[in-house]
Amino acid sequence: MISDTVFPVEPWVLRETRFDPELLSQSESMFALSNGHIGMRGNLDEGEPHALPGTYLNGFYERRPLPYAEAGYGYPEDGQTLINITNGKLLRLLVDDEPFDLRYGEVCSHERVLDLRAGTLTRDVEWIAPTHRRVHVQSTRLVSLTQRAVAAIRYSVEALDDKPIRVVVQSELVTNEQLPDVEGDPRVASVVANPLKAEHQVQHNLAAVLVHSTKESGLRMAAAMDHHVSGVEDYATHTEIYPDLARMSVTLVLQPGERLEVVKYLSYGWSSLRSVPAVRDQVAAALTGAKHAGWEGLVREQREFLDDFWDGADVEVDGDAELQQAVRFAIFHVMQAGARAERRPIPAKGLTGNGYDGHCFWDTETFVLPVLTYTIPHAAADELRWRCYTMDQATMRARQLGLRGAAFPWRTIHGEECSAYWPASTASFHINADIADAAVRYVNATGDGDFERTAALQLLVETARLWRSLGHHDTNGRFRIDGVTGPDEYSAVADNNVFTNLMARRNMLAAAEVCARHPEEAHELGVDVEETAGWRDAANDMVIPYDEHLHVHPQDEAFTSHAVWDFEATPQDHYPLLLHYPYFDLYRKQVVKQADLVLAMQLCGDAFTPEQKRRNFDYYEPLTVRDSSLSASTQAVMAAEVGHLDLALDYAAEAALVDLRDLKHNTRDGLHMASLAGAWSALVCGFGGMRDHSGRLTFAPRLPGGLSRLRFNLLYRGARLRVEVHPDEATYSLTDGGTTLHLMHHGEAFELTEHESLTLPIPPTPPQPRPRQPAGREPLRRHPTA
Amino acid sequence: MISDTVFPVEPWVLRETRFDPELLSQSESMFALSNGHIGMRGNLDEGEPHALPGTYLNGFYERRPLPYAEAGYGYPEDGQTLINITNGKLLRLLVDDEPFDLRYGEVCSHERVLDLRAGTLTRDVEWIAPTHRRVHVQSTRLVSLTQRAVAAIRYSVEALDDKPIRVVVQSELVTNEQLPDVEGDPRVASVVANPLKAEHQVQHNLAAVLVHSTKESGLRMAAAMDHHVSGVEDYATHTEIYPDLARMSVTLVLQPGERLEVVKYLSYGWSSLRSVPAVRDQVAAALTGAKHAGWEGLVREQREFLDDFWDGADVEVDGDAELQQAVRFAIFHVMQAGARAERRPIPAKGLTGNGYDGHCFWDTETFVLPVLTYTIPHAAADELRWRCYTMDQATMRARQLGLRGAAFPWRTIHGEECSAYWPASTASFHINADIADAAVRYVNATGDGDFERTAALQLLVETARLWRSLGHHDTNGRFRIDGVTGPDEYSAVADNNVFTNLMARRNMLAAAEVCARHPEEAHELGVDVEETAGWRDAANDMVIPYDEHLHVHPQDEAFTSHAVWDFEATPQDHYPLLLHYPYFDLYRKQVVKQADLVLAMQLCGDAFTPEQKRRNFDYYEPLTVRDSSLSASTQAVMAAEVGHLDLALDYAAEAALVDLRDLKHNTRDGLHMASLAGAWSALVCGFGGMRDHSGRLTFAPRLPGGLSRLRFNLLYRGARLRVEVHPDEATYSLTDGGTTLHLMHHGEAFELTEHESLTLPIPPTPPQPRPRQPAGREPLRRHPTA
Repeated sequence: MISDTVFPVEPWVLRETRFDPELLSQSESMFALSNGHIGMRGNLDEGEPHALPGTYLNGFYERRPLPYAEAGYGYPEDGQTLINITNGKLLRLLVDDEPFDLRYGEVCSHERVLDLRAGTLTRDVEWIAPTHRRVHVQSTRLVSLTQRAVAAIRYSVEALDDKPIRVVVQSELVTNEQLPDVEGDPRVASVVANPLKAEHQVQHNLAAVLVHSTKESGLRMAAAMDHHVSGVEDYATHTEIYPDLARMSVTLVLQPGERLEVVKYLSYGWSSLRSVPAVRDQVAAALTGAKHAGWEGLVREQREFLDDFWDGADVEVDGDAELQQAVRFAIFHVMQAGARAERRPIPAKGLTGNGYDGHCFWDTETFVLPVLTYTIPHAAADELRWRCYTMDQATMRARQLGLRGAAFPWRTIHGEECSAYWPASTASFHINADIADAAVRYVNATGDGDFERTAALQLLVETARLWRSLGHHDTNGRFRIDGVTGPDEYSAVADNNVFTNLMARRNMLAAAEVCARHPEEAHELGVDVEETAGWRDAANDMVIPYDEHLHVHPQDEAFTSHAVWDFEATPQDHYPLLLHYPYFDLYRKQVVKQADLVLAMQLCGDAFTPEQKRRNFDYYEPLTVRDSSLSASTQAVMAAEVGHLDLALDYAAEAALVDLRDLKHNTRDGLHMASLAGAWSALVCGFGGMRDHSGRLTFAPRLPGGLSRLRFNLLYRGARLRVEVHPDEATYSLTDGGTTLHLMHHGEAFELTEHESLTLPIPPTPPQPRPRQPAGREPLRRHPTA
Repeated sequence: MISDTVFPVEPWVLRETRFDPELLSQSESMFALSNGHIGMRGNLDEGEPHALPGTYLNGFYERRPLPYAEAGYGYPEDGQTLINITNGKLLRLLVDDEPFDLRYGEVCSHERVLDLRAGTLTRDVEWIAPTHRRVHVQSTRLVSLTQRAVAAIRYSVEALDDKPIRVVVQSELVTNEQLPDVEGDPRVASVVANPLKAEHQVQHNLAAVLVHSTKESGLRMAAAMDHHVSGVEDYATHTEIYPDLARMSVTLVLQPGERLEVVKYLSYGWSSLRSVPAVRDQVAAALTGAKHAGWEGLVREQREFLDDFWDGADVEVDGDAELQQAVRFAIFHVMQAGARAERRPIPAKGLTGNGYDGHCFWDTETFVLPVLTYTIPHAAADELRWRCYTMDQATMRARQLGLRGAAFPWRTIHGEECSAYWPASTASFHINADIADAAVRYVNATGDGDFERTAALQLLVETARLWRSLGHHDTNGRFRIDGVTGPDEYSAVADNNVFTNLMARRNMLAAAEVCARHPEEAHELGVDVEETAGWRDAANDMVIPYDEHLHVHPQDEAFTSHAVWDFEATPQDHYPLLLHYPYFDLYRKQVVKQADLVLAMQLCGDAFTPEQKRRNFDYYEPLTVRDSSLSASTQAVMAAEVGHLDLALDYAAEAALVDLRDLKHNTRDGLHMASLAGAWSALVCGFGGMRDHSGRLTFAPRLPGGLSRLRFNLLYRGARLRVEVHPDEATYSLTDGGTTLHLMHHGEAFELTEHESLTLPIPPTPPQPRPRQPAGREPLRRHPTA
């Protein structure tokens, strides 16, 4: 766990107050900059020391064969791995021939600041070289949110000595960096060594371009750099180029107090189709745009973009400064992952690391898109349009599995299924309903009719077809979905998973509705009234198991018959359980890795009575170990709904602090984008009580002890809706949009018109006994109650 | 399918009447010779052409890493592969410098005969070389059943020309033979290239020894040969030796009508402990023994061994000559697999090929051991003692899985689990009950008290402990075994598989009984009365699911709720289904690869009423596709019991002809030992109606139309029991043993004393409508009825 002495609590920045090599791997992830297209880990400018050097381009991957000791029909033959591309972050410094390296000499001060409003990573170092020369190094790095292909770094060196210092700054592009060896944990990415082959390189003055391509996946990329040197008069430059290296060197003697400044402009591009000259010229053009804006222009654009973003997306929390910082950090990184992904996937780690091979999972639609839908709606639409682009792969996969419609991959970059373990991937069909649900949510939240008629219709139809062919009517006329895996990965291949069945029901009903609204477009997809009737019938006949004896919903049909995991006999160092117990034993017992039935209650809350929610929540709490980061936020939301407000706060903080405190011990592999997005949900859907079932926006705000105020913003149908929650009342206000919204507050409907504000009282929360969690798996108490 | 024109129907031999290169791969398996210790595929003396050269030593394997694209806790890291050892079968011939090779010149006649009473493979060829020289080549090969380490070949060449012919016979030992590339089918063995490293080689006169060891598994082997040359006066010999080759050459000019005869004596040995000189001397000693017996002596011993074997094991069938041949072929190969295995595993393919990597599965205990128990009882005991030797690995595996007792591996050579796919291996816990059941059967059939007190007690206690920890009592006090896989590999990880639960119940009860009989020995294993009471309680509380709606036993608790596989839409070329459909789809539907509930009715027949058996059998027939060779024999037995006698005959023939007709299209990888053993069961337990529930031998013989007589022999408690069945009556007679047996005939108890004979009438069989099978999966009709 990372303490807050290194990273103090501040509302709008993440500040690292000293250099701690032990925290390097985590800080590289936390300080990652991205716009969703380019991702740069927070590696030090000079490259080393490093834990994992990382520069990524969304969708730029290498293919590799997946090995099987015992192969089976339908097993994917190839995996896809996000690869570390040409590193343009490098700015090496020599001080009187001594490399600037924090492992040597003396670090007088070292501070890095990720500014959530500026969208920059700045660094400020005073260093005394082993040769006793003292320098002041400053750098500011940004990955542009306005110019998708561009990044830039301003780097300065100042001589603090009373004698002149000879310095060399080497600004580089380095391809095929040496990477650290990979470990045995299956969640860590496989490393593809030297993935890129050189195709072209050119340099001119202070600029250079390297063009490379992958060996197997047939993708081509280019990286370009140019420089502006200032602050000094008398310096020499030299630019060299090699297949895997471009280097621009500035050499000079810095007089005491003199300060050399180098601005490095970077651009990246890739294509699966375009030629070497085309890709080369594409990055050159982007570079021209960046230089035209100039450093100050790029910084200003970045700030303007973020001012607008925060105006619609900020979540303010009074009473818990650490949570305030954490939720802004979380929202910032979710924004970075999605803002400019533009019809490419949003990976589970964003572009902050190569964990899970840079794959996109259901996390994106279920956890990340709800945030983007209400904060940067076009980013949500773009992600779903990427799913549409992969429709061919999804329909082919469905055919391979003997099913109709589309079967989207459990994990992928390019659209093909990349999971080698089918019980927790192929069988996890719920991802298809998750995608459909995200599409419906986006349409409801934006009223984007064009998207509905095109992307949403196609996604809904093909997923409804999948469900209709995946389930079957039994002899009693009930529609069953057997042998599938729900969200909880400690159960698998079970019959009638409640989450899956509820989501599939909603999927089929939504598909039928959208087809009814767009009969012509539906007809073009081959849909007729018999087909939509078949979806409605299956949905209405759907089996939703209920345990009449325990009066709870079993996670799946057999779940509550199974033995309860022996939590008392499980040592604390045996978590996560999957690394210490066989799947066979996890699957056959009542132990929950991550919210499953509880997630069903969040997303399909209209399918449960309040009493059922209370009983179910209390039943699953003692079974849920949260070995996945996709759990705490859901538990926060449902704890809040059923009245366990303090517990909800504990879970909200866990979700928000997952990376700031490295709670899962793998922040080094990249940030937990779904958990970070879940921090937003924990506050907005948890304490704000926001739900969007059936396309209607409803609220049931309630604050836990300790929080005095919560304010959040939502973009909704072109309007900006602001909700400010105090312990006893909530105020709803609307700006922009020129519309009247029909909302609900604690079950009471109300209307809100532009520029209007309405304050409503919050009913008291009846006290509830706090439920137990498995021994040792209790969340950290945020505000211990005696 | 192999036709009977190449392999004509004869009662005691398998004769190949001409050389058909298309059938080489199958004939190599069918003509394999083995004593359970050494195995030699029926490769041609001259080595080529070949499909798969194969010489094996039981238990001699190489280790290799098992690759996983996504690893998991408890996945085996290493596989084990039976390797092709030093080939001593080779006798190459040069005729006037032209290699004797059937692919060149003219084959005038070519006959090979596997003599089931002599235990030899003979070959008779007339061949005209491309140089027009005509020779008559004869060879006889045996793997000694009396001298475990010994094989021998008599090889002769006769000049049929009217001119002298210069001939060279090269007799060789060849290590690290080049093997054909392996295919993608998971059932085919992985090839380990050049598995052996040379350690020592020595030659003296016409003899040579090669000593090699494996690179990873640390095993050492030696192969030795010596020769006796006769029939000619004037010849020269030369012996050479290299690390991977020993060659003895005989050169001479054969006069017309002259005949050179070479007898090659071979011996093999291996050890995981002994030194190079020790292993070398071990094979030299074996060779001395072989030469002392001489060729004629080895042939005579072989015949005597087999005369005695057939006297106690022969099954005679009148009315179906093809079935008669097939069942003797089957019994012969089962005998070869087990006779001298001597505390080593009996692999699924015996030592006839490297299919399934030479692994031993549950096949051995469930299908092969019942035959050996009643025909070569000591071989059954030895196999079970091998299981005891692997107890350390089995208890360690149980610990790794979080269980008590022993968890025997699904597939292994040395005792460690070697399966990379846990849902069809680790989860198939029934193998533990299968081993326990085989031990109980052996003790009941032999009265071997020493075995019971030692091996059986240990096996029963540790497996009972496994079951007690694997299952749990639910809130209603019923003992459940959740999340396991039964025999049917088209279902997996299901709750309360009836076969598993019945076998586990029997296992725990038998363990408690044996402990009660041997309290001191049980005490040494830490068993107390609380523990045995716990086993009895769990057994008595065991859940045996029953579908009250359909009035059948579901294979597992949820089975009959699942969709029935769409057999009509399944093309015939999509069998076996596992190569054309994903596991996920097979597992979630009602489709049965191999008898599971039906096998439960055979092995635990006392747990079902006759009416339940009829209904269950008729329910599962239309669902069972027999994609496994471990099914037809069980279906034969149960079809006969419930009165479908003609169908039983169809299945019996399918089991018996599996390799003679290559019904599974993979006889090239080795013979299907369990199916061959099942042919015996189909006749003895099917038409003989033999059962041994609760240690009591009972019969309910009934012949199908077409069979006029069935006679079989059983070794039982030291006696030889003969049962001769005619359509209307059966005669029981007893020789040896000096005991009185308490038997049953169609539910009526009777006694039989030594040298006594008793004839009892067979009640008529009520007519039954023949059940359907899945479309296209009907067994071949043996005697079509209209």
